[in-house]
Amino acid sequence: MPGRSVDDDRSDTVVTPSAEFPPLDPAEVDTLRRVGAQWRTGVPPALPVDPTLDRYRSRPAPGRFSRLAPIALFRPEQDDRPEQDDRAGRDGLVAAEPANRPDSRLGRRLGRFRRAVLGPPLTSAAVLHERMRKLVALPVLSSDLLSSVAYGPEALLTVLVLAGSGALGLTLPLSAGLVLLMVAVGISYRQTIPAYPHGAGSYLVAGDNLGVGAGLTAAAGLMLDYVLTVSVSIAAGMHAITSALPGLMPFTVPLGVLVILLLLAGNLRGVRTAGNIFVLPTYAFVAAVLGLLVVGYLRAAGRGFAPVAPPVVPATEGLGLLLVLRAFASGAVSMTGIEAVSNAVPAFRPTEWRNARTTLAWMVAMLVVLFAGLTLLIHLTGLVPRPGETLLSQLARVTFPTGPWYAVVQATTALILLLAANTAFNDFPRLLFFMARAGHAPRRFLHLGDRLAFGNGLVALAGTATLVYVAFGGHTEKLIPLYAVGVFLAFTLSQSGMVVHWRRHRGVGWRRRALVNGVGAVLSGLVLLTAAVAKFTEGAWVVVIAVPLLVLLFHRVHRHYRALHAALALRPPPGGREPGAHPPPTAGEPPATPAPAPAAPAAPAPASAGPGRAAGSVEREEVPQELRHLVVVPVARLNRASMRALAYAVSLGRPTLAVHLAPEDAEADRFREQWRAWGDHVRLETIVSPYRAVIGPLAHYLAALHAAAPELVLTVVVPEVVLRRPWHRLLHSRTGHRLRRALRELPGVVVTSVPVHVVE
Amino acid sequence: MPGRSVDDDRSDTVVTPSAEFPPLDPAEVDTLRRVGAQWRTGVPPALPVDPTLDRYRSRPAPGRFSRLAPIALFRPEQDDRPEQDDRAGRDGLVAAEPANRPDSRLGRRLGRFRRAVLGPPLTSAAVLHERMRKLVALPVLSSDLLSSVAYGPEALLTVLVLAGSGALGLTLPLSAGLVLLMVAVGISYRQTIPAYPHGAGSYLVAGDNLGVGAGLTAAAGLMLDYVLTVSVSIAAGMHAITSALPGLMPFTVPLGVLVILLLLAGNLRGVRTAGNIFVLPTYAFVAAVLGLLVVGYLRAAGRGFAPVAPPVVPATEGLGLLLVLRAFASGAVSMTGIEAVSNAVPAFRPTEWRNARTTLAWMVAMLVVLFAGLTLLIHLTGLVPRPGETLLSQLARVTFPTGPWYAVVQATTALILLLAANTAFNDFPRLLFFMARAGHAPRRFLHLGDRLAFGNGLVALAGTATLVYVAFGGHTEKLIPLYAVGVFLAFTLSQSGMVVHWRRHRGVGWRRRALVNGVGAVLSGLVLLTAAVAKFTEGAWVVVIAVPLLVLLFHRVHRHYRALHAALALRPPPGGREPGAHPPPTAGEPPATPAPAPAAPAAPAPASAGPGRAAGSVEREEVPQELRHLVVVPVARLNRASMRALAYAVSLGRPTLAVHLAPEDAEADRFREQWRAWGDHVRLETIVSPYRAVIGPLAHYLAALHAAAPELVLTVVVPEVVLRRPWHRLLHSRTGHRLRRALRELPGVVVTSVPVHVVE
Repeated sequence: MPGRSVDDDRSDTVVTPSAEFPPLDPAEVDTLRRVGAQWRTGVPPALPVDPTLDRYRSRPAPGRFSRLAPIALFRPEQDDRPEQDDRAGRDGLVAAEPANRPDSRLGRRLGRFRRAVLGPPLTSAAVLHERMRKLVALPVLSSDLLSSVAYGPEALLTVLVLAGSGALGLTLPLSAGLVLLMVAVGISYRQTIPAYPHGAGSYLVAGDNLGVGAGLTAAAGLMLDYVLTVSVSIAAGMHAITSALPGLMPFTVPLGVLVILLLLAGNLRGVRTAGNIFVLPTYAFVAAVLGLLVVGYLRAAGRGFAPVAPPVVPATEGLGLLLVLRAFASGAVSMTGIEAVSNAVPAFRPTEWRNARTTLAWMVAMLVVLFAGLTLLIHLTGLVPRPGETLLSQLARVTFPTGPWYAVVQATTALILLLAANTAFNDFPRLLFFMARAGHAPRRFLHLGDRLAFGNGLVALAGTATLVYVAFGGHTEKLIPLYAVGVFLAFTLSQSGMVVHWRRHRGVGWRRRALVNGVGAVLSGLVLLTAAVAKFTEGAWVVVIAVPLLVLLFHRVHRHYRALHAALALRPPPGGREPGAHPPPTAGEPPATPAPAPAAPAAPAPASAGPGRAAGSVEREEVPQELRHLVVVPVARLNRASMRALAYAVSLGRPTLAVHLAPEDAEADRFREQWRAWGDHVRLETIVSPYRAVIGPLAHYLAALHAAAPELVLTVVVPEVVLRRPWHRLLHSRTGHRLRRALRELPGVVVTSVPVHVVE
Repeated sequence: MPGRSVDDDRSDTVVTPSAEFPPLDPAEVDTLRRVGAQWRTGVPPALPVDPTLDRYRSRPAPGRFSRLAPIALFRPEQDDRPEQDDRAGRDGLVAAEPANRPDSRLGRRLGRFRRAVLGPPLTSAAVLHERMRKLVALPVLSSDLLSSVAYGPEALLTVLVLAGSGALGLTLPLSAGLVLLMVAVGISYRQTIPAYPHGAGSYLVAGDNLGVGAGLTAAAGLMLDYVLTVSVSIAAGMHAITSALPGLMPFTVPLGVLVILLLLAGNLRGVRTAGNIFVLPTYAFVAAVLGLLVVGYLRAAGRGFAPVAPPVVPATEGLGLLLVLRAFASGAVSMTGIEAVSNAVPAFRPTEWRNARTTLAWMVAMLVVLFAGLTLLIHLTGLVPRPGETLLSQLARVTFPTGPWYAVVQATTALILLLAANTAFNDFPRLLFFMARAGHAPRRFLHLGDRLAFGNGLVALAGTATLVYVAFGGHTEKLIPLYAVGVFLAFTLSQSGMVVHWRRHRGVGWRRRALVNGVGAVLSGLVLLTAAVAKFTEGAWVVVIAVPLLVLLFHRVHRHYRALHAALALRPPPGGREPGAHPPPTAGEPPATPAPAPAAPAAPAPASAGPGRAAGSVEREEVPQELRHLVVVPVARLNRASMRALAYAVSLGRPTLAVHLAPEDAEADRFREQWRAWGDHVRLETIVSPYRAVIGPLAHYLAALHAAAPELVLTVVVPEVVLRRPWHRLLHSRTGHRLRRALRELPGVVVTSVPVHVVE
C-alpha cells in the first residue's frame, strides 16, 4: 500500500538543476524584507546602457574572438505572464548555446573535443524521468544482480575447498541457505517499494527512520559497495575474457582500466542512451546460462543424475564453523544488486510501485533459478575452482566440448559483468546528489553537467574504482571479502529502517510487514557479522575501518556547511537604529558569539555597520548609506598600468591615497620628484622598505590604516598586466597575485583589479 | 692603465636594490608632465585618515594575528631636507623588520624556519663592497682555478692512455703546451683588468665591444660553465672522498646533492660569511700538494730522476692527431676559473685594479707550478689512470705509503673541490643580474633577497647543477668534455673583445696590448675548436646545441620586455583636445599600430579616452574626468555575501545593475520574487542559462554590454567567501576564481572582490 514517510522533503527524489539554488523559507524571506527596509538609496542614477540589450540588436559588433557578436548570444525570455511593476517584472534573457563556450583558444579546443566525445549540451528541460516498460526495466536493473551468479558460486566453493574436497558435500546445504536468504530479502524489499514510491535507497530509508547516523552509515556502505561493484565486475569480466583467451592475461590491468574509462565516457554522455544497451546482453546472458543448464542437466540425466566425483584436493585448513560461515558469506555476494529496483522506482511507468514490485519478483525468481541451477550442476559435474579459469568457464567447457557455445557463454558473461558495473555508475552519483542536498557531501555533486549527468560523481566513482582495481592487480577473489560487508550493512540498515517505519505508521497489517522486514534484517545482520568477523583478516578490516571514517567525514562536511550557512545567512538589523549615526568603535571588543535565531533582535551591539569593524565583532549586513570609503592605490612605477589604476580610483570620487614602497631612501626621493612632475594629483605616501619586501609591509600598512579607522572600507586598486600567452607569465613576478592573496585575509579591505592588456 | 669603455652605464657593475626601479629618462619625465597636465580632479575630498599614522601612535590596537599593533611597525623617515611644498615633500614611513613577516600561520612558521637557517634580514644599507686584502682574495678567488689541477692532469692522461701506454710519452710535450697556454691567457687577462676596473666578466667585455649577440653568446657559455663547475667540482670532490673511503661509493649521488644544497644554504645566508671559509682550505690544499711534490721529487731524486715504467695498457684507439688534440683539450680544463679575479675587481682594496692584477699573476704562477709539478711527477712515477681511484690519490698513496699524509692530501683536495663550486655560486647570480638589468633575463633575477643575496639566481644554479649531476650519476669524466667548450668560448670572446677595445681606444702602446690579447684569443679559439670538434661525440654536442638555443631564448626574453615596456610606457595625450568631449566610437575600427616615438603627437585618432574602446584601437591613458562607470553585481543567492557586494556597489554612487543566472525559468521567477521582497533597490537582470553554465554566459553578457557601450568602464563586484582553513576550499566550487579569470580577458572590465570572512 503506498504511503509517505513523515518528511516528504527528504524522500523527494526528484533531481533538478535548481537544487543548487534552494528556496528561502518564510523566516528568511522576512529577514530579507527587513534588511531591505533599511536601505536608503535615494534616486539611483539611470543606467547608461539597456541591460536587456534590446536597443543594440540592430548593430552587432563582432566579438573579440569569434564571428558572433556577443549581443546575438542572448534572446529575451518568452513570458506569458502579464507585466507586473515596471522594474522587476520585466522578462529576463535566455542564453543561447554558444554563450556557454569559453573564449580562450585552449578553452575552445577543449570544448570541441568535449562535444565530439560527449555530444552537444542538453537543456534543463530535458530532465524528464524516462519511463521504462517492465520488460526493459528488468534487464536494465537486473544486470548487476544476475551477473553475480558468474562469480558467486565460485566464491562459495573457493572457500569450501580449502578444507579439502571432502568439504564439498556442504555445497548444497549452503546453497539452499543462500536461496532462502535471497527469497527473504526479496520479499522484504518487495514491501519497501510501496512505502517509498519515489525511490527507496538505503540511505533515504535508514536516514528517514533510524536517524542521520544510520543513514550516513548506510550511505558509506553503499558507496563502498558501488566502488567495489565496479572493481569486482570489471575484474570478473576480465577474468572471463582471459579464461577464453589466456594470451590476454598480462594485459588484465590496462584493459580493465580502459573499460572503466569507456563506461565513464558513456555515462558522461548521458543516461538516456545507456538504458538501451542493456536489454540484449542481459537476455542473452540469461539465455546462455539457461541453455548451459538445460544441456548440462540433460547430460547428467543421461548419467542418471549421479554426481561425478570431484578431483581430490588436499585440505589446507580445518573444516570448522568459521570456514562454513566464511563460505556462506562469500556466496552471499550473489545477492549484490537487489537494491537496483527500489532505487529506480520513479523510472517505471505508472503505477510505478506496482510495476517495480513485479519486476523485483521476476528478478529474484530468475536469480534463484540461475543460482540454484548452477550450483547443483556444478555439484553434479564435480568441478572445483582452479586458478586461471573461472568455474563457469570450466562448466561451459565440460558441457559444450565442441562448437561455438562455449564462446557464447563466455562472451555473454563478460558482457553482462561489464554492464553490471554500469549500474553503479547510475546509482553512485545519485546517492552523492542526495547527500549533497542534505549537506553531507561537497556541493559540487549537486551540479548537473551539460549532458544532464552528474559529472563530478561519475568521475569520482571512476577514479576510485580504478585505484582499487589497479591496487588489487585485477584479482577478483581478493576483492570479494570486502564486497559482502558493505552490501549487507546497507541491507541490514534498510530493512531495520522499514521495521521502524511500519511501527510508526500503524497501518493495516503492520505487524506482519514488520515481521517480514525484521526477519530480513536479522538474516542480513547475521551475514554482515559473519562477513565482517570471518573475513576480517582477509580484507574486511578495510571496510570495517573505512565506514566509520567515511561517516566521520560526512559529519565534518555537514558541520562545515552548517557553519557556512550560519555565517552567510542574513541577520535582521537591530531595531531602533538611526541611519547615518555610528558611535565610535570600541577597541579590543571581545569576539561575539554568532547571532541567535533570526527573529530575535540582537543584544546591545554597536549600531555602525561598516565592514571594517574591530577585529572579532559580528559583522552585520551593511547598508550602502553608511559605508565610508578610502581608496588606496599601490604604485610601483609611473607607467600606463599605474595611470589607469589612478585614473580609475580618482574617478570614483572618494578620498584617494597612493602608496609607494621604495627599497632605499634615494629611490623614494626620486619617486617623489617624479610624482611632483606629474602634478601631484593624488596624496602620496612613501614607505621605505629597507628589507626589500613588498607584500608584507604593504599589507601591514593597510592593516594599520584599518586599525586607525575601522569604520572605513579600504578599496585597494591594483593594476594587473594581462598577457596574451601563458608562458610570458614566467617572466613576471606574481606580485599582483601575492598582494591580492595577502589582502584577502584582511577584514574590511576590498581589492579591485584594473587590467591592462598587453597585446604582443 | 685604467680607462672606461664608451657605455659607462653598461659597465657599471654596482649592484643595487633599486635596479628594479630604473629612473625615467628626461623624455619620459616630460611625457609624465604632459599627461598629468590633462587631469582635472577639482578639489579632492579630504582623507578620512592620516596616512602617516601619526595621530594614532598613542592608541595602538593589537593586530589580527600578533601582539604588535600594526601601527607600531612603521616609523617616520628621518629626513634632514627642509620641507618643500606641503603635500609632496613630507617624509615617508620606514617599515620595521617585523613588517615583512607574513601574517598567516603557515607563513610565520616558514618565516621562523627561514630565519633559523639563513639568519635575520639585512637592510639595503648593508650592500657594501666588501674589500679583501690580497692575501685573502687570493685563496677566495683561486679555489676554482687551483682545484682544477686535481682532475686536469688526469683528464689529459685518460685520453692519452686510450692509445696505449706508449702514447704516454707525449705527456710532457702536451703539458708544456698547456703551460704556455696558461701563461698566454694569464697575461691576456692581466691586461683586461685595468681596462675594466669595475669588473670585467666576459659578458660585459664581449657585449661592450663585439655587440649584443657576442655578449649573449659569452653569457651562455659562462652559464654552462658555472653549472658544470658546480657539477664537475662536486663530482670530483666525491670521487676524491670515495677514493679514500670506497665504502661510500654507492652514496655518491645523494651525498653530492646534499653538498649542493649545503652550498646553496650557505650562499643564501649571504656572501659575507662565505669569504672567510675559503682561506684556510685553499692554503691547506696548496701546502698539501706542494708537500706532495717535494716528497715525490726527493724520492725521484733518490732514484736519479729515472722515470718508472708505467704498466702496460693495451691501446683501444689509434694514436693520431685527433687523439692528441682531444687530450690537449681535456687537459685544458685545468684553466677553468681564471676569470674569477677579473669578475671580482671591485672587491679589492684600492687601488683595485693594481691589486687585482698582482693577485692574478700570483694565481697563474701557482697554477703553473702545481700543474707542471704534478704532471712531471706523475710521469716520473709511471702512473696511469685507473677507474675507481683518482690519479692524485694514486700519487699520494705512492708518495706517502704510511702516515696520515695521504688522508691530508685527499681531504684537502675534496675540500677545495667543494669550495670551487662556491665560486660559481658567486658569479652565476651576478651574471643573471646584469643580464636581467639589460632585459635579457627574467626580471626576477634582479631581486635582492632579505639577506642581500640573489636568491632566485642561486636556486636556479643549484637546481640545474643538481639535475646535471644526477643525470650523469656523479661521474666526473663524462662531464669534462662539455666543460671545455663553454669555458673557452667565453675566453675567446672576451679576449677578442679586448682586441676591439684596444683598437677603439688608441691609447699608448695599444698595438702591443692588442697583440697580446689577440694571441690569447687565437689560442683560446684553437682550443675551443679542438674541444668542440674532437669531443663532439663524447658530449660536446650538447653545448654546441645549447649555446645557440640559450642565445635565442635571451633574445626572445628581451623582445618580450621591450614590447612590454612599449605597451606600458606613457604616451603623451594628443594636442587640442577638449576635456569632457568624446565623439561616438566608430564600430569596427581597424587596429591601430602602436604609437610612434613619444614626442610626436599621435595621428588622427579618436580623442575619447575611456578604456573600453572598440576592440583593437590603441588605449590611451585615461583621465579621471572622462571615465563613465557602470557597476555590475552578479548575484547567485541572497545571503550576506551578496548583500555586502550590493551595498558596496550602491555606495559608490554610480549606475548599478544586478545580474542573476538561473538554470530554469521557475528558479528565475522565484528569484525575482525574492528580489521584490527585498525591496528592489537595484535594477535586476535575470539570465536563464538552460545549459546550467555560469561563467560563459556571464562573461558573454558583460562582453555584450561592453559592445553596446564601449566607452563605459564596467566594474564587476564579486563577493568572495574567505575560509580560514585551506582544506575547506575543497568543499567550494571555485566559481569566483573562474569568473575572475574569465573576466580578466575582457577589455574594459574591472573586477572588484568584496571579501566575506567566515570564521569557523
